[in-house]
Amino acid sequence: MAGMIVIYKQPADAQAFDTHYFETHISLARKIPGLRKYEVSRGPITVLAGPSDVYLIGTLHFDDLDAMNKGFASPEGKAAGADRRLYAPDESGVQIFIFDSMEI
Amino acid sequence: MAGMIVIYKQPADAQAFDTHYFETHISLARKIPGLRKYEVSRGPITVLAGPSDVYLIGTLHFDDLDAMNKGFASPEGKAAGADRRLYAPDESGVQIFIFDSMEI
Repeated sequence: MAGMIVIYKQPADAQAFDTHYFETHISLARKIPGLRKYEVSRGPITVLAGPSDVYLIGTLHFDDLDAMNKGFASPEGKAAGADRRLYAPDESGVQIFIFDSMEI
Repeated sequence: MAGMIVIYKQPADAQAFDTHYFETHISLARKIPGLRKYEVSRGPITVLAGPSDVYLIGTLHFDDLDAMNKGFASPEGKAAGADRRLYAPDESGVQIFIFDSMEI
């Protein structure tokens, strides 16, 4: 599998963030070709180490990195990426990691 | 489900980190009661936003936050946590997030 973890810091306007994320972004992201699973954190995030101002974590799973790359290169992938920059425009407010993974 | 995401920064000695993580830590962590799934990143991590010095990401899944708390309060959970502080002793070198999650 391949995963993308997206970690959002506390937004200035949490209600506006939630509205955009849950009412627009999720439906766009779910259309990305090859997406196998999409998980979103629910409620507060406990931070044991690292930055404490984390608000929401989304995790997207694809079969492998090639499938993920193809998915994000598609029109649907580009639309989801462009939408993300609407509700989280400041790159310092988000961490995005992409990696191949194995279940152990 | 509930998830714990552990993000390790590039260690000073990657070979020593790998030896400890893959030969000791994984077997300890897999003994935590209630652990449902354990995924580890494989190979380099691409960073689209956020800190660029990320080396490895581990994700542990439990049925819910209560099960996770019980697991980490157990002797096996405490042993895995203590072991983590051996190979990643500097809290600035790791991010750990705990959260309830939903598949959407």
